Amino acid sequence: MRQWQRAWLTGDLTAGLVVAVMLVPQSLAYAMLAGLPPQVGLFASLLPLLAYAVFGSSGSLSVGPAAITSLMVAQSLAPLATPGSLTYQAMAWCLALGSGLLMLLMGVLRLGFLSQLLSRPVVQGFTVASAILIFAGQVAPLMGWPSLGYTVPEMLWSAWKQVSTPSDVQAGDALMGLGALLALGVGPRMVSALGRLSHWPVAGVQIASRLWPLVVLVLATLVASWMGAQTDLHPALVGSVGRGDAVAGATWSTLASLGRDDLRGLVMPVLLIGLVSFVSSVSVAQAFALKRGERIDADRELLGLGLANVGGAVLGGMPVAGGLSRSVVNEAAGARSPLAGIVTAVLLGLLLLTMMPVLAYLPKAALAAVIIMAVAGLIEWQALRSAWRYDRAEAWSFLSTAVGVLLIGFEAGIMLGMAWSMGAMIWRHSQPHMAAVGRVPGTEHFRNMARHQVECLPGVLMVRVDESLDFTNIQRVEQRLCELIHGQTSSRLVVLLLSAVNHIDHTAMQSLLELDQALKDQGKTLYLAEIKGPVMDRLQAGDLARRFEGRCFMSAQQAWTALSCV
Amino acid sequence: MRQWQRAWLTGDLTAGLVVAVMLVPQSLAYAMLAGLPPQVGLFASLLPLLAYAVFGSSGSLSVGPAAITSLMVAQSLAPLATPGSLTYQAMAWCLALGSGLLMLLMGVLRLGFLSQLLSRPVVQGFTVASAILIFAGQVAPLMGWPSLGYTVPEMLWSAWKQVSTPSDVQAGDALMGLGALLALGVGPRMVSALGRLSHWPVAGVQIASRLWPLVVLVLATLVASWMGAQTDLHPALVGSVGRGDAVAGATWSTLASLGRDDLRGLVMPVLLIGLVSFVSSVSVAQAFALKRGERIDADRELLGLGLANVGGAVLGGMPVAGGLSRSVVNEAAGARSPLAGIVTAVLLGLLLLTMMPVLAYLPKAALAAVIIMAVAGLIEWQALRSAWRYDRAEAWSFLSTAVGVLLIGFEAGIMLGMAWSMGAMIWRHSQPHMAAVGRVPGTEHFRNMARHQVECLPGVLMVRVDESLDFTNIQRVEQRLCELIHGQTSSRLVVLLLSAVNHIDHTAMQSLLELDQALKDQGKTLYLAEIKGPVMDRLQAGDLARRFEGRCFMSAQQAWTALSCV
Repeated sequence: MRQWQRAWLTGDLTAGLVVAVMLVPQSLAYAMLAGLPPQVGLFASLLPLLAYAVFGSSGSLSVGPAAITSLMVAQSLAPLATPGSLTYQAMAWCLALGSGLLMLLMGVLRLGFLSQLLSRPVVQGFTVASAILIFAGQVAPLMGWPSLGYTVPEMLWSAWKQVSTPSDVQAGDALMGLGALLALGVGPRMVSALGRLSHWPVAGVQIASRLWPLVVLVLATLVASWMGAQTDLHPALVGSVGRGDAVAGATWSTLASLGRDDLRGLVMPVLLIGLVSFVSSVSVAQAFALKRGERIDADRELLGLGLANVGGAVLGGMPVAGGLSRSVVNEAAGARSPLAGIVTAVLLGLLLLTMMPVLAYLPKAALAAVIIMAVAGLIEWQALRSAWRYDRAEAWSFLSTAVGVLLIGFEAGIMLGMAWSMGAMIWRHSQPHMAAVGRVPGTEHFRNMARHQVECLPGVLMVRVDESLDFTNIQRVEQRLCELIHGQTSSRLVVLLLSAVNHIDHTAMQSLLELDQALKDQGKTLYLAEIKGPVMDRLQAGDLARRFEGRCFMSAQQAWTALSCV
Repeated sequence: MRQWQRAWLTGDLTAGLVVAVMLVPQSLAYAMLAGLPPQVGLFASLLPLLAYAVFGSSGSLSVGPAAITSLMVAQSLAPLATPGSLTYQAMAWCLALGSGLLMLLMGVLRLGFLSQLLSRPVVQGFTVASAILIFAGQVAPLMGWPSLGYTVPEMLWSAWKQVSTPSDVQAGDALMGLGALLALGVGPRMVSALGRLSHWPVAGVQIASRLWPLVVLVLATLVASWMGAQTDLHPALVGSVGRGDAVAGATWSTLASLGRDDLRGLVMPVLLIGLVSFVSSVSVAQAFALKRGERIDADRELLGLGLANVGGAVLGGMPVAGGLSRSVVNEAAGARSPLAGIVTAVLLGLLLLTMMPVLAYLPKAALAAVIIMAVAGLIEWQALRSAWRYDRAEAWSFLSTAVGVLLIGFEAGIMLGMAWSMGAMIWRHSQPHMAAVGRVPGTEHFRNMARHQVECLPGVLMVRVDESLDFTNIQRVEQRLCELIHGQTSSRLVVLLLSAVNHIDHTAMQSLLELDQALKDQGKTLYLAEIKGPVMDRLQAGDLARRFEGRCFMSAQQAWTALSCV
């Protein structure tokens, strides 16, 4: 915020207004997704925007109730309390406060680098799977069914039960939901078609598209009241909640009633929600930063998101994160600084004060339609296809995360994905590529014999190792080296090119010393070349530099020159 | 075995005899360490030697009851059954069979590479800590106390209780134990002193040293009988066990009585014991192989050890592994092939048939003294000191494993050690070294500007990245690159040298594309040089090769030449 310029004022104000209007239906909907009363979503949209502006380093990120974190709240609390009950709200409050404090602590400890632990395929797999779960799960309120559950097997089973047992299809909910879905889907297209025909300004058409969900929601509320009054159909409404609970999210008495076991059951969800909020927010922020040539400081993001979640607890009572769609809209509408978020917060606050009594009449099916439209855009397979073409292992990171989330749950999905990415990285590291090299004629450049036309010195074998040497791969390197040596029995001199070796650990260094001795016993001499500076520093602390005195060359060319005379 | 030569016959026979004699007290003692009747140790020494000869790839490794695996048996079964009871023996039988089958399965699936997952400092830390635990634990039978427990806190607490409460010091045990300890310690020194004075052949002196523990044990048995008959002191004796149980290690009825919960409690110990047996045996085998210029095939080691453990179950009933001291003696006495092991097995079998009735009269304190002398040699700190000098992080691998084993248990120790080693490796990987480079005058060789005298092209910034690029480090690489670019604002051309980059994953490739675009927007051009063959193959499958058409150079020198004209 300190770099704010007056020129940014218009953009920030516009963005603030547009986002506020877009957020009303979204916040209400996401709170319902989390199993909380809708106004919690609106209240939890206020302080986070202000709090993030204090620390956050992104000019485009918009922080508030987000799809995936809301789903995670619902999934973690479902076994612990009844959705909608005071205990449930108290627990959601704890989740928000807990993950906020956790992120603040991580930020202070400068643990921001941990965001790098989840690769893009894992984050993308997680996002797509969560979107699918949300999409599928919203069929329930759309059709007036009870909740279907939070993993695909559960959902299929519950759906089967609902379809196969004769029960009254809640016609009111179904009509309302499908109608809202239709309106939300068709509306923006009609608006842009009209806009093109009437030559409206593009910005105006876009803003109208952002306004549309709010319009639909208002219409839906009116239609629901009419249906309730004039027909036999009664779409389920949100219902009313006392003012005090709505504002604070939880009363002191409910919080005090949470026992030790309850709190212990919340530890893992707090960790997970904190991690996922952080990683997904940072990945959204980075996408924007690169476009705008800005820099994201992961530690400041932790502080900003942490404070935002604490704010989301103080007022509202649900965890928050940086959302993709709201940030996209924020940025497209012209936001240049967190001032846009402040404007959004103020406007939402005003709307809230005026709209509070009306919220009770919102039909749940319409909110479900809003959610479905919001997450449909997250289910895209381009990332998977491009990963599949490039590197199957990465596509499997995506798939293992997605399948884990869909079939078992968030913990399993994330851990599977992390284990796969890390495992693949360690596997690659332990199977290093090695090449016998020769000199490209006329140059001082050495390349792989198998791929290039190169010349070699008789009696000299030059081998390049393409990986840092440590305990995970030194055995294999030595085995392969011995194979190459045995394949060229006329070579008495062996040069190991370490241009691609960025680190040699203690185990590898000891192994090299033993290898040197073993080769000596076989009448061969080992030389080293192109040792990097940091590696050499370490080797001098061990025995190796001393043992290899006179047998280290600065470049492959120097080795070539020195050994051609031998 | 297929490469056996007649010339090896003498060495193998000698080694077989010497090792058999040395093994009698050791096997008895290790069985007692494992909480089993001593003859189980002798029986379990027979088949493993034969079984290992079938598959194993080491000519020096001697397989049978070993110190660390025996300790692990005792530690895992202590909470589950009373040491010495039939249930306990049945469970030990299950451990042997389970780890044997596990290792056979791993060998068939060619999972031998997993032995590389534990770095040397971890294995050494584990060995030293186990030796300390064994050493300290044997104070109990030495003094006639009940078992002290299996972690340092437990032991200190139990020792304190024993010392502080007035109880009869078991004088018989204490005298017997300390006497045996003295005899075992002083004997070899006296023998070598005598040998030097009398000019005995060195080989003869060594063989006498190996015979000494057996002699001490025989003397101890006689002294114990005398003490029991002629004095008031009654050293605890091993006691007798029915023949059937001794041979099979467990009767069918006892096995059948093991319930589901019992078996479930054995799963983790089977995994741990299998892993530790495998890794410690392989590390012993490799130490010998390098000296002898042989090759260890980890998959065949798995098959050999697996079959050995199955054999250890069929006859005997305790897990086995390759032991360091027995392999050292085996090799030093002249073993060249597993025939030495076969000879040992045959001799032990004969000794067993003749000695069975006598075993009941062995004093436990003397066996404790044998164990103490056997493991004292494993407690050495040279490895730690040399690791500390070279790389603190590796010394911490050692220490975290050792502390974990000493304070908490084997699982904790191994996992701490693995987590530390892997974590350190991933940390290093995610913090790559980067250097702005220039050309060493008069050559085509490029080195770090900060460390060498080099010349640079005006307007061109050449940067070398010293690590493969993937999701764990690409952010940091881009940040550092941007810092370097901003530090040299006159440079419009940036060359990224990828000579040390052995792999670029999908996330990193996408990030490079985004970086390229961001630099373009700032009016700078990015070039790549020295891309390795395997890396280029992959880049061509993605978009990057196409986007960088004409901007990839085979060598840094080519980039220099091409860009000096720009």
